[in-house]
Amino acid sequence: MRMVDMIEKKRNGLNLTPEEIRFVIDGYIKDEIPDYQMSAFLMAVYFQGMTAEETAELTMAMAKSGDQIDLSKIHGVKVDKHSTGGVGDTTTLILAPLVAAAGVPVAKMSGRGLGHTGGTIDKLEAVPGFHVEVSEEQFIGLVNKNKLAVVGQSGNLAPADKKIYSLRDVTATVNSIPLIASSIMSKKIAAGADAIVLDVKVGSGAFMKEMKDAEALASTMVEIGEQVGRKTAAVISDMNQPLGYAVGNALEVKEAIDTLKGNGPADLYELCLVLGSKMVVLAGKVQTEAEARAMLEEAIENGKALEVFKTFLSAQGGDASVVDHPEKLPDAKYKIPVLSEADGFVEGIAADEIGTAAMLLGAGRAAKDSVIDLSVGIVLRKKIGNEVKKDEPIAIIHSNTEDAAVSARKVLKAFKISSRRPSAVPLIKG
Amino acid sequence: MRMVDMIEKKRNGLNLTPEEIRFVIDGYIKDEIPDYQMSAFLMAVYFQGMTAEETAELTMAMAKSGDQIDLSKIHGVKVDKHSTGGVGDTTTLILAPLVAAAGVPVAKMSGRGLGHTGGTIDKLEAVPGFHVEVSEEQFIGLVNKNKLAVVGQSGNLAPADKKIYSLRDVTATVNSIPLIASSIMSKKIAAGADAIVLDVKVGSGAFMKEMKDAEALASTMVEIGEQVGRKTAAVISDMNQPLGYAVGNALEVKEAIDTLKGNGPADLYELCLVLGSKMVVLAGKVQTEAEARAMLEEAIENGKALEVFKTFLSAQGGDASVVDHPEKLPDAKYKIPVLSEADGFVEGIAADEIGTAAMLLGAGRAAKDSVIDLSVGIVLRKKIGNEVKKDEPIAIIHSNTEDAAVSARKVLKAFKISSRRPSAVPLIKG
Repeated sequence: MRMVDMIEKKRNGLNLTPEEIRFVIDGYIKDEIPDYQMSAFLMAVYFQGMTAEETAELTMAMAKSGDQIDLSKIHGVKVDKHSTGGVGDTTTLILAPLVAAAGVPVAKMSGRGLGHTGGTIDKLEAVPGFHVEVSEEQFIGLVNKNKLAVVGQSGNLAPADKKIYSLRDVTATVNSIPLIASSIMSKKIAAGADAIVLDVKVGSGAFMKEMKDAEALASTMVEIGEQVGRKTAAVISDMNQPLGYAVGNALEVKEAIDTLKGNGPADLYELCLVLGSKMVVLAGKVQTEAEARAMLEEAIENGKALEVFKTFLSAQGGDASVVDHPEKLPDAKYKIPVLSEADGFVEGIAADEIGTAAMLLGAGRAAKDSVIDLSVGIVLRKKIGNEVKKDEPIAIIHSNTEDAAVSARKVLKAFKISSRRPSAVPLIKG
Repeated sequence: MRMVDMIEKKRNGLNLTPEEIRFVIDGYIKDEIPDYQMSAFLMAVYFQGMTAEETAELTMAMAKSGDQIDLSKIHGVKVDKHSTGGVGDTTTLILAPLVAAAGVPVAKMSGRGLGHTGGTIDKLEAVPGFHVEVSEEQFIGLVNKNKLAVVGQSGNLAPADKKIYSLRDVTATVNSIPLIASSIMSKKIAAGADAIVLDVKVGSGAFMKEMKDAEALASTMVEIGEQVGRKTAAVISDMNQPLGYAVGNALEVKEAIDTLKGNGPADLYELCLVLGSKMVVLAGKVQTEAEARAMLEEAIENGKALEVFKTFLSAQGGDASVVDHPEKLPDAKYKIPVLSEADGFVEGIAADEIGTAAMLLGAGRAAKDSVIDLSVGIVLRKKIGNEVKKDEPIAIIHSNTEDAAVSARKVLKAFKISSRRPSAVPLIKG
């Protein structure tokens, strides 16, 4: 087999056999296929697409390209969740204890990552003492005991995906549904998931701007799951404004605690219930999402979810008293209101602008070695449909420097104020 | 400017500005743009094409990427000819003295190259004593004096084209009209041509199998010429069988001499008149191709073309007496007839099979350092439309080894014999 023939075959719109797909991925990870052939191949995939079978084979070839986590010692069906990325997305912090309270084992492998705010681990480190330095054995023990533990991504998971992603990033081949779908799924499968729930974001603040693209991505990933024997479900949710009100690490932890207490933002709470219900069903705990939803609502109401969260924090060295005393979380020095410049109604909030404003305050990493300030961020005061008066605060900036003018301007720019009340935007779109 | 944005722009079907095209080519030749970005870009061009303006800019950027030959000291309009490559294509050996006899200066820079037979220089070296070791000054002097001289390709001509071509070869991006057209034209322009006549081959033995592709390539090259101020004309000619009868170095020299004497194969003679007429017109010697054709026919009839050929050979050390005594040319030891296995009519002759058969005898280079045997080759005895009887020779193999079975089988396989007389194939198709 020669790589140039694989490129030509795909270029001509033909389908590659499983053996050919494995040849491409194995050869690339072994450096037998050079970057310049891989990038031409990826561009051919961009134009010609891939069948469900090709995409599934690609996913598995990447999943098997490095370490594969063995979670078989954890009792029950391991359900993982993945979000395609949004701003102020605090769902993991809520979902994890929530479904754990319903008896679903949550063995979460998470990252730090680049972006508007830190990753799940960064956020959790806002809780004094919390750490992820646990051995694999301890990790499995904790999940079996408490139904929930979080560790950092260790080992060499799906290195083929990592190598291919770096190449896609600089060759304008990121934006291809089969490549995005296989990238996400390969990592989840390598991380040991038995079942996967996907939260595909759509809207101005998401990678997928159009509903049809979000639908294509969701159905491609569900199809991969079917092909490779992992139960997979997907939700398409709105990202035309940040989820919830808080954007920032400690701020999101606080919002997660509020939500677990039943006092969280409606959209965040609803999305957690929808995603959590699917996780509980995929884990085989109940038959229908309605039953699952009732279980989760009860776990919030009777305090069980909050209790699991506390136990989880303590087990990994965290000070669980933050749950009852959120003032113990890192707090920024200055709270600077951003005032509306007009009367009207909020028609949209550019989530990516809000995210960038938060990152500039120090809430996220611009580069791999940036240091995060866990206390800073932005708390929205208005969301789509809300009425605002001129000089009324639309958001509060939490900053450790007195001058947050650049971020304030970005927040102001992010808000689209119109004179007419906009129609309601559904949170769950598919 | 960033290369990833150029790739994305082309991927999205947008047109690059002249500045952007130059950025891509300059960056690539300076190694500032890596192969993996270039190959993704080339694949995007494969799918999205290029406008006439983009293709012209690409051509000039490549032409200017290295040395540019200055032929300004040669009096008159320098017209170059390029063929997209066929088998048994002896046109240059005939055209050069023919148009020189009509007063058009021919400053031919030629190569050795890989392929079925040698390049123009290899063929000329079949004439005892002939060499191309002349200085630039001598070369220019010879053209001004005799209207004709041939030198080897020296210097660093269009290195960007060379670098890009190597990459295209291994990334399935060869087959793109704007890339093929700009590659050809950039080399001709760097070699100092004022005007260019193109012979685009079409048919089973050519790179372009389909008429519509040949037409697209021809019109794209003519358009480039218009855009960059070089008068350009193109002919589309048939390559469903080898041109003429001879395939091999000394054998083709002999056929060229026959043609200059007016005794050559009809198809080869006709193509030389068609291409030559366009060259004479582009050189501004006459207004119409009919006038040009009459001039060229006269130069054959009155022996002027043959005289120019003799003078040219002598001036570069060659033994011009071969013209009157072709037996002085290298001659192979064995002449092995290939006999027809059936009665019928020749319907087609797979030119590439004949070419490979000649190469296997030693007439061409399989690798860059292969040594050519100038004496060997194949002389066809039958061409399309001819009647053949079983056991009648369809070709004569000229070999220096007694056993030429492999080549004989290839020749036999190349001939398609049918029971019905085929309709005539026009030589000039556009």
